[in-house]
Amino acid sequence: MTSAERNFVLDHLDDLHADLDTWLRIPSISADPLHARDVAASATWLADALRRVGFPTVEIWPTDGAPAVFAEWPSADADAPVALVYGHHDVQPVDPLELWAHPPFEPTRVEGPDGPELHARGAIDDKGNVAFHLLGIRAHLAATGRDTPAVTVKLLIEGEEESGSPHFRRLLEDRRDRLGCDVVVVSDTGMAAPDVPSAVTAMRGLADAEITLRGPAVDLHSGSFGGAVPNPLHALAELLAKLHDDQGRVTLPGFYDRVRPLSDRERELMSRVPFDEQAWLAGPAASRATYGETGFSTLERTGARPTAEVNGMWGGYTGPGHKTIIPAEAHAKLTFRLVSDQAPADVGPQLRAWVEANVPAGIEAEVHTPPGGVAPCASDLDSPAMGALLSAIGQAFDTAPEDVLFTREGGSGPEADLVEVLGAPLLFLGAGLPTDRIHSPNERVLLPMLYRGAEAAAHLWRELAAARLR
Amino acid sequence: MTSAERNFVLDHLDDLHADLDTWLRIPSISADPLHARDVAASATWLADALRRVGFPTVEIWPTDGAPAVFAEWPSADADAPVALVYGHHDVQPVDPLELWAHPPFEPTRVEGPDGPELHARGAIDDKGNVAFHLLGIRAHLAATGRDTPAVTVKLLIEGEEESGSPHFRRLLEDRRDRLGCDVVVVSDTGMAAPDVPSAVTAMRGLADAEITLRGPAVDLHSGSFGGAVPNPLHALAELLAKLHDDQGRVTLPGFYDRVRPLSDRERELMSRVPFDEQAWLAGPAASRATYGETGFSTLERTGARPTAEVNGMWGGYTGPGHKTIIPAEAHAKLTFRLVSDQAPADVGPQLRAWVEANVPAGIEAEVHTPPGGVAPCASDLDSPAMGALLSAIGQAFDTAPEDVLFTREGGSGPEADLVEVLGAPLLFLGAGLPTDRIHSPNERVLLPMLYRGAEAAAHLWRELAAARLR
Repeated sequence: MTSAERNFVLDHLDDLHADLDTWLRIPSISADPLHARDVAASATWLADALRRVGFPTVEIWPTDGAPAVFAEWPSADADAPVALVYGHHDVQPVDPLELWAHPPFEPTRVEGPDGPELHARGAIDDKGNVAFHLLGIRAHLAATGRDTPAVTVKLLIEGEEESGSPHFRRLLEDRRDRLGCDVVVVSDTGMAAPDVPSAVTAMRGLADAEITLRGPAVDLHSGSFGGAVPNPLHALAELLAKLHDDQGRVTLPGFYDRVRPLSDRERELMSRVPFDEQAWLAGPAASRATYGETGFSTLERTGARPTAEVNGMWGGYTGPGHKTIIPAEAHAKLTFRLVSDQAPADVGPQLRAWVEANVPAGIEAEVHTPPGGVAPCASDLDSPAMGALLSAIGQAFDTAPEDVLFTREGGSGPEADLVEVLGAPLLFLGAGLPTDRIHSPNERVLLPMLYRGAEAAAHLWRELAAARLR
Repeated sequence: MTSAERNFVLDHLDDLHADLDTWLRIPSISADPLHARDVAASATWLADALRRVGFPTVEIWPTDGAPAVFAEWPSADADAPVALVYGHHDVQPVDPLELWAHPPFEPTRVEGPDGPELHARGAIDDKGNVAFHLLGIRAHLAATGRDTPAVTVKLLIEGEEESGSPHFRRLLEDRRDRLGCDVVVVSDTGMAAPDVPSAVTAMRGLADAEITLRGPAVDLHSGSFGGAVPNPLHALAELLAKLHDDQGRVTLPGFYDRVRPLSDRERELMSRVPFDEQAWLAGPAASRATYGETGFSTLERTGARPTAEVNGMWGGYTGPGHKTIIPAEAHAKLTFRLVSDQAPADVGPQLRAWVEANVPAGIEAEVHTPPGGVAPCASDLDSPAMGALLSAIGQAFDTAPEDVLFTREGGSGPEADLVEVLGAPLLFLGAGLPTDRIHSPNERVLLPMLYRGAEAAAHLWRELAAARLR
């Protein structure tokens, strides 16, 4: 079941390939100050590319960190809704470099079992996901014979997502008048599998914390003092061992109070997503066993339930050989993933109270929870905008809209800020796959997924106009 | 109650002061390869000093590490017993240097509440304890009018004690024929308080171990995988939280099987040692509370009971900010202090079995226990040699022998090797105090303790000859 949009995309793949080949050579690693110029060059490249495509307004917006790119192509239609595409042009660091089969900034085409792949840092996260929009809007115009898109299309492509978007909320607030929209289209996610068209409907929020336990004022000789004074490493182990109960639930009092229970319909929708747990363990999870909250599936655990993870732990002597000390301090870094309607600001007080209640005599605890955090966010499954998205994805994948599945993203990003500052609902359109090794060596994109992404974007602008959002 | 020995010591304090002032300026830090020349210079200084005192045989014994100093002064008396003094001429590192009130290698005299103190790295551990023997043997000869000591006196002063004595056992075995003795006098410990003459009667043994837990094959994104696969940091916390039960006892099966119970007499002797727990907490222990095995006093916990301490723990991200990972690995370093008749070689299998039994599904454990370790050692409280020691200490402190108290040293050293290789019993004669800050900034010695140490050594050679050990 072909379409004019698809025909245009397939006739212009060379443009997409050429764009990626140039853009992916720019090492726009936002976490590394040495690459600040590359991040700026990446913004410049994208701005030029958007002008080439035809966007009448293209601007580079500086921030106190890396620059963002803004573009706008107004629809000539009266009352056309406004869609804002969100993505990012910065990429993750590449170490350990020795694990890459090809240099990370020399895009390399590899024939894979599911079709041609392009290997490079940023191939999907997020340059690939942004690049398909360059072709998508051209396909939309060509297929519909229009001079301007059926909806006003704006793009906001930030340069610090891989560094935690530290200046993004401020940018949204400062530029709120230019960013007004009826719907936000997040293009920084993916689908369940190459043959399983799906749409993300929620992302988890994030709260982070650091715990410091202090025992003796100085490191003590463990021969002279061992077994007679509290050891902060023992206290930390005992504390963190209590972070989960034997059902795998987080034990902070009140942690689950605001968690919206999964409805039967949501659970049914999630259960339709094909998921091969053994393949997942052997592949992306690289683990020997599953673990988690009793009563929930792996997909529910990673997408729909809040969690607490210790990300780092340290204290005492960690060099070669041994040093017989009771250290003065022990430390742990934790992050909590949150789901609707949990609030990041609630976690600090909950954690502080829990630590106080569980620290033994003689140990002093300090809990640092930086302000901010990321709120969880979710799409309305029944909105007209969601109907347009499912229809667009369905057409790109030759599937009925009702067969497009819903998935949830376990990670966290600045999407909640878009909802809060702009007051617009979220849609997610991304062409990634769980097997794309984002943030890891040998990141890749499955090129046919990008082609379908471009086609879905082309359909989406037409469908959103038809959905009459306003 | 003065004595000829005391008079000689008090008349020659300047010699002791001059010796220390020279020797303590040599930064003989054995742990730092950059100081290897200084350790050698320290050995040379000591050898020259021993020749100056009159030892007819003085040799520097090289090892695969730092050199030891051997000296021998045979008694002219037929059947005189042989005493071997053990000590070390290397010192601990000095960092953090900024916490020193005076430069660590510029010996500085400070008037303290208990008398004059000398501040320097090694002031007591162990150069002070060795130096008093230089004066002690001269006092013995002068007071008794002898040309040779009443017992054959040997010294073995090693250069790697602060680095774990890695070549010491080999040295003992290679030089066994030169080291034969009837008693070993360990001069590397101290007394309970300035006004509490006491003798150490036991040292704890040591076994060390490193535990590595492995979860995912690579660090995973905690947003995508958090809450669904085992986190090795959680597993490590849960494991180490089980290392002690709620009575503070070590939970390795079999750990206490070979522990000789404290006799009523031993507990009564230990209870006679004056111990101000609040002062100990506020001072050397620098801690807010005591902790330990139920049913035992703090002195029993540190001296007479086996313990397990986590000395270091690490895994995951430990830098600034946060990194949302489930790390592939988690690590801990542990040391176990052992008491008679525990054996270091038993700890590895016990620990391995315990780890295997307590690691959750999906986590792979590796337990590394280096061969060797240190056996616990103890003196015979009722031997004639002990009688001689108590008498010597009593005379130096103007106390009856039966009022010299017994203490136990919680630390571990190569003393057990001396017993095993040389087959001789141990006596401990040292002039340190719990408040001397050994291994810490501002190490000091209370000079009157050194004077009494020199006098006790002088009495000891006479008393040992009288005790007719053979």
